[in-house]
Amino acid sequence: MTSLPRIVITMGDPAGVGPEVCLHLLADSQIARQCVPVLFGDAGILRRVAAATKLPLHAPVISHEQWNAEWSAIDWPCVVDLQTLAADAVQPGVVNAATGRAGYTYVDRAIDAALAGQVAAVSTAPLNKEAMHAAGINYPGHTEIFAARTNAPRSCMMQYSEEITCTFVTVHVGYRDVPALLTKERILDVIELTAAALERLRDKPPKIVVCGLNPHAGEHGLFGDREEERIIIPAIEAARQQGIDIEGPLPPDTAFLPWKRKATDAIVCMYHDQGHIPVKALAFDSAVNTTLGLPIIRTSVDHGTACDIAWQGKANPSSIFSAVRLALRLIGTSPYA
Amino acid sequence: MTSLPRIVITMGDPAGVGPEVCLHLLADSQIARQCVPVLFGDAGILRRVAAATKLPLHAPVISHEQWNAEWSAIDWPCVVDLQTLAADAVQPGVVNAATGRAGYTYVDRAIDAALAGQVAAVSTAPLNKEAMHAAGINYPGHTEIFAARTNAPRSCMMQYSEEITCTFVTVHVGYRDVPALLTKERILDVIELTAAALERLRDKPPKIVVCGLNPHAGEHGLFGDREEERIIIPAIEAARQQGIDIEGPLPPDTAFLPWKRKATDAIVCMYHDQGHIPVKALAFDSAVNTTLGLPIIRTSVDHGTACDIAWQGKANPSSIFSAVRLALRLIGTSPYA
Repeated sequence: MTSLPRIVITMGDPAGVGPEVCLHLLADSQIARQCVPVLFGDAGILRRVAAATKLPLHAPVISHEQWNAEWSAIDWPCVVDLQTLAADAVQPGVVNAATGRAGYTYVDRAIDAALAGQVAAVSTAPLNKEAMHAAGINYPGHTEIFAARTNAPRSCMMQYSEEITCTFVTVHVGYRDVPALLTKERILDVIELTAAALERLRDKPPKIVVCGLNPHAGEHGLFGDREEERIIIPAIEAARQQGIDIEGPLPPDTAFLPWKRKATDAIVCMYHDQGHIPVKALAFDSAVNTTLGLPIIRTSVDHGTACDIAWQGKANPSSIFSAVRLALRLIGTSPYA
Repeated sequence: MTSLPRIVITMGDPAGVGPEVCLHLLADSQIARQCVPVLFGDAGILRRVAAATKLPLHAPVISHEQWNAEWSAIDWPCVVDLQTLAADAVQPGVVNAATGRAGYTYVDRAIDAALAGQVAAVSTAPLNKEAMHAAGINYPGHTEIFAARTNAPRSCMMQYSEEITCTFVTVHVGYRDVPALLTKERILDVIELTAAALERLRDKPPKIVVCGLNPHAGEHGLFGDREEERIIIPAIEAARQQGIDIEGPLPPDTAFLPWKRKATDAIVCMYHDQGHIPVKALAFDSAVNTTLGLPIIRTSVDHGTACDIAWQGKANPSSIFSAVRLALRLIGTSPYA
């Protein structure tokens, strides 16, 4: 019997770079010393990608039925063949309804496995949203799939790297839809989830910064509709009363200054690009995407399907390695675990 | 007779770090070989700051009347004493209506000098907006003062550094006010101003990138109100028809990726923090703020009044040096010159 945690890796959209970064991971001896990676995907596709990229595929392939019967005894890297697609049904870089549905199915089954307690965490390779939508699956991203499938009463996206870590009050909504989604309760939820996750990662009470919504954080009502005074400051004060070490709302362009981010464990952002712009600019190859507040631990690569280089062996697998390593550090942080 | 261009430097809010960074500049022998710096401010304040910070003040002081009579013969660094404040009327770090009005007056007189052709450019030390507002002067910043005083039919802010350069379709407005201000005409104006300035700075046709408004640039209408399709893409297509080398609208977090910004001369941003966040994160000590499209050349430091360290000799003057150097490179780029 192994003492290593089992981690499900989902293969991502089969037409993208997901299969090849998963092949790198499955073959890595260092990863195999830290956990038992279990790849949920299509074995036929994976064999074609291995042949095309000259990457090795030595891990044994088992069926979904075999997994469900024998998961507790599995202590070696393996592939669970979900058989969603014929091996020859996919062209490299060509996403469509079939690849979108396949990518979603891997995630769906991975969530089942995690909710059933078969695995300690899920790390996901990239989906392609347009392919999913072509299949009639209308989630904007992994974050929303996991939140919906686990009925989490509150959750939020975190982008984590050693250089900079951001959490998000809103994510995949249009620019103009953000203000109506900002409430004291939602911001306080995100602050609490952020503080709990960072305390686990840092092993000490973290220092949290909260961004304003408006330029210069509204400059005392000069810009905007006093969202800072009406909504953000009350949430910060409520968090401070809980003993959270917190500062803000800062002018958004001040929050990311080099000395400020070095003195900060995490930055709470009001909208997608407020945090994604600096994370991608500063930590493009090391950031990991995760969802806080779920009953299961879930991390994800911070890149897309990169269809222009799919199945060519060019994709940099560092983000999926970072995702698995962060998942291992987060095990035990779920508020439900 | 000198062949060096005269540049007016405005002293900024007297209670902030403006006076001391100007003292550094006035005393610099390398700057004096490149231009004739003329400081518009209050000589009494400047002497107090020099004493407090132990910075030298050897430049001669002349009156505003003397300047207006003799400007064409002035070919040495000097201080033009505008006598807006008694020397003992200011406390370090304490801004108020009096310091706000003084800071504005320096800028106002500098614009007069530039419009009269007395100087080739204006470089500004930081104003304090709350102090200006206390004085009943309701501009959100230098950009708007220069645009209003010069009746420029179109202008835009540019933040310039060697690492990253951004121009702005909107600047000092609330988050929720941005979408209504985006028009094809305004975006095309900013693209044209950007291309013209960068062509001058690079000595070749520049490569311009335009950001979307929404996360993922709307992802083909998935997020937002199709601002990309309705407004931004038509502006980009009009610019391309003029022969401008242009790409976009890019997902905003893609536009600032390291390899993308290295291949790009300037990034056109839809709103303040879209560009200010990455500029401050990546080029916090070297970025220069300038206004394109004015009949006069104007550059500015990229920092505020920093009242917490005012008059202590701690302020880093590198931004005012960068501002003057960029002004020298921009001379001749005004569409009116």
